[in-house]
Amino acid sequence: MLSKQILEDISNSSAIRAMFTEGNELAKKVGRENVFDYSLGNPATPAPQAFTDALLDIIKEEDALNLHSYMDNAGYENVRRAVADNLNERFGTDFKWTNIIMTVGAAGAINVILKTIIDIGDEVAVFAPYFTEYRNYVGNWRAELVTIAPDYRTFQPDFADMERKITEKTKAVIINNPVNPTGVVYSEETIQRIAAVLEKKQKEYGHEIYIISDEPYRELVYDGNRTVFLTKYYKNTFVTYSFSKSLSLPGERIGYMVVPDEMADFPTMIAGLTIANRICGFINAPSLMQKAVARCLNEKTDVAFYDTNRKLLYHGLTDLGFECVKPEGTFYLFMKSPEEDEKKFIEAGKRHHIMMVNGTTFHCPGYVRLAYCVQKEMIERSMLAFAALAAEYGLK
Amino acid sequence: MLSKQILEDISNSSAIRAMFTEGNELAKKVGRENVFDYSLGNPATPAPQAFTDALLDIIKEEDALNLHSYMDNAGYENVRRAVADNLNERFGTDFKWTNIIMTVGAAGAINVILKTIIDIGDEVAVFAPYFTEYRNYVGNWRAELVTIAPDYRTFQPDFADMERKITEKTKAVIINNPVNPTGVVYSEETIQRIAAVLEKKQKEYGHEIYIISDEPYRELVYDGNRTVFLTKYYKNTFVTYSFSKSLSLPGERIGYMVVPDEMADFPTMIAGLTIANRICGFINAPSLMQKAVARCLNEKTDVAFYDTNRKLLYHGLTDLGFECVKPEGTFYLFMKSPEEDEKKFIEAGKRHHIMMVNGTTFHCPGYVRLAYCVQKEMIERSMLAFAALAAEYGLK
Repeated sequence: MLSKQILEDISNSSAIRAMFTEGNELAKKVGRENVFDYSLGNPATPAPQAFTDALLDIIKEEDALNLHSYMDNAGYENVRRAVADNLNERFGTDFKWTNIIMTVGAAGAINVILKTIIDIGDEVAVFAPYFTEYRNYVGNWRAELVTIAPDYRTFQPDFADMERKITEKTKAVIINNPVNPTGVVYSEETIQRIAAVLEKKQKEYGHEIYIISDEPYRELVYDGNRTVFLTKYYKNTFVTYSFSKSLSLPGERIGYMVVPDEMADFPTMIAGLTIANRICGFINAPSLMQKAVARCLNEKTDVAFYDTNRKLLYHGLTDLGFECVKPEGTFYLFMKSPEEDEKKFIEAGKRHHIMMVNGTTFHCPGYVRLAYCVQKEMIERSMLAFAALAAEYGLK
Repeated sequence: MLSKQILEDISNSSAIRAMFTEGNELAKKVGRENVFDYSLGNPATPAPQAFTDALLDIIKEEDALNLHSYMDNAGYENVRRAVADNLNERFGTDFKWTNIIMTVGAAGAINVILKTIIDIGDEVAVFAPYFTEYRNYVGNWRAELVTIAPDYRTFQPDFADMERKITEKTKAVIINNPVNPTGVVYSEETIQRIAAVLEKKQKEYGHEIYIISDEPYRELVYDGNRTVFLTKYYKNTFVTYSFSKSLSLPGERIGYMVVPDEMADFPTMIAGLTIANRICGFINAPSLMQKAVARCLNEKTDVAFYDTNRKLLYHGLTDLGFECVKPEGTFYLFMKSPEEDEKKFIEAGKRHHIMMVNGTTFHCPGYVRLAYCVQKEMIERSMLAFAALAAEYGLK
């Protein structure tokens, strides 16, 4: 007597986790050091020491009743102010504390936004390849997911396809920047073109079309890449953020959303979002974590660690003749399968003890994703296995 | 362009918060000590020192990467085992770690359960008076809420009404025990009768009808009252729990659910709930808090504090001639309004600087709720105001 939707979800559920589990089984047989597991996007660097110090200080300084109590469902005013001030400093924006709502991670933020704006039958568009959970989040609120194709040369969006896919029913477009699974960072031109299409469509259909810009990897960019701040380019933008990656806190579920003053119906929207935070069952972002991240807004996990891995893996694989999308951010690398059905390629990889995730999971068949949030030594050890795999496919 | 449902939610939203805000405004005018604010159910006693110590120890002992990382979406195995063992000790149950899923509070747990079992158009029954958020949680998943009337003499359920209200469409019944807002503890006989009605209806309709037993106040019982553990009486029972009240951690959002082995389709149900925990956007219960509560399962906030308040308020009010439901648990007292329209009574109370919440909020007009999670001195000071109010209504 489970719901029809959850039964489907169970059967679709997570190729990523399945691969991770398979990797663990394999490690029992052949030894952990002989398995090259690129499946899971679990941070591999610890939270900065400053974060641990902040936690300890707060627990010692604050009265326990006050520290763990309810606050406004949108979060502590001083935490929201700290986040706004920090964004303003870094991105030249002009946010006030009232533009920030603290959330249970970015996943919480996206669900709260969808709860607030979606009526049954609305459409929400995403850009392929996309993080699979978007489909599930959109399904929670009974909207239809619509997929916009990428330009396969650059993995920036295919704008002709975008024009076709935005319809009168489109309520929102989800952007993930930098992109999981490709590692691509959207250029300023891309952002401007997305905004231009949506401005036109808003006018044409006479109602708002929101952007939800999901940015958990914002701090994980390389080669001087920078993500642009989307609210500057398009008024009806929600930005969602999580500290899971930037501070290596994925288990703690702490993040926020940004809602600019310029958004249509701003005061009602904030009221709706705040209530939705409660009604969805989050109530509020966890109180101790709110206070701790507010003290660490300029802290980052060790980005150089991931950058080293990125170069090692990207150069290693392309030198062997594999075709890869050049990763500019995140800790993922997207590689073209040497044969059309990437699932067969993944099986071939497994025979060399390499665990990769199929692109179909991200609505992009023919590719595989490698998460390089791993120890550098694993990448080094894996190169012989990749060489054997390349030889099997007659690359180079 | 907000959703129709959230616009309704905004307009209905929280008489409780409104009263709290009004109380604060009044305090600015007449002084905090002259306002008798019984509106909010915010714990008034701090988390036990053992909890603070546990937090500090864990942060110092554990490696930061491990401490804040992802775990199984259902929670840490050793935390789940500690919860199961503790329940077994206290309630003579026989749970294993696999019967426990750690959640983002009880609100998270209830939403995860509803996501897992509800198809559009299903009905979920609640017993009036009931915690208003149940209506919103049920609305999230597009089910219909059906209200079962109480027996107004005892505020245990009206079983004749229950028989009528459980239909072929009923997928679940939510029980809140001890009850917010009445403070009533369901007797073993009540539990047995609820179970008997549902067993009969399950047979009649040929499908499962689940109980969701929401027990955030389980530890807040007085006079030797004990809540019985519902899975012993009815197989298809989910128990949801939060540490918000028992450890005074409402801001931290940490709780769990219990799913007994005897539940229909147990393995599929656990798989569905675990995925729903992720899909709803919770992902997992916050990691540090999971580990901290696992060390404090025998700790409780200062129940004697609330018991003193309970007696003071109950005896004070009944001595003045007010008719009150005797509170056996929670930190709420439910009082009959001396005039039919309790909103007028609440206005009269405000003129004496007494802030109470209307029963209509809990689907029980003609009553008001007083939250006595306040300082004892406030209750003492308020008695003169209540005396004046009683005189106005010619009580005694």
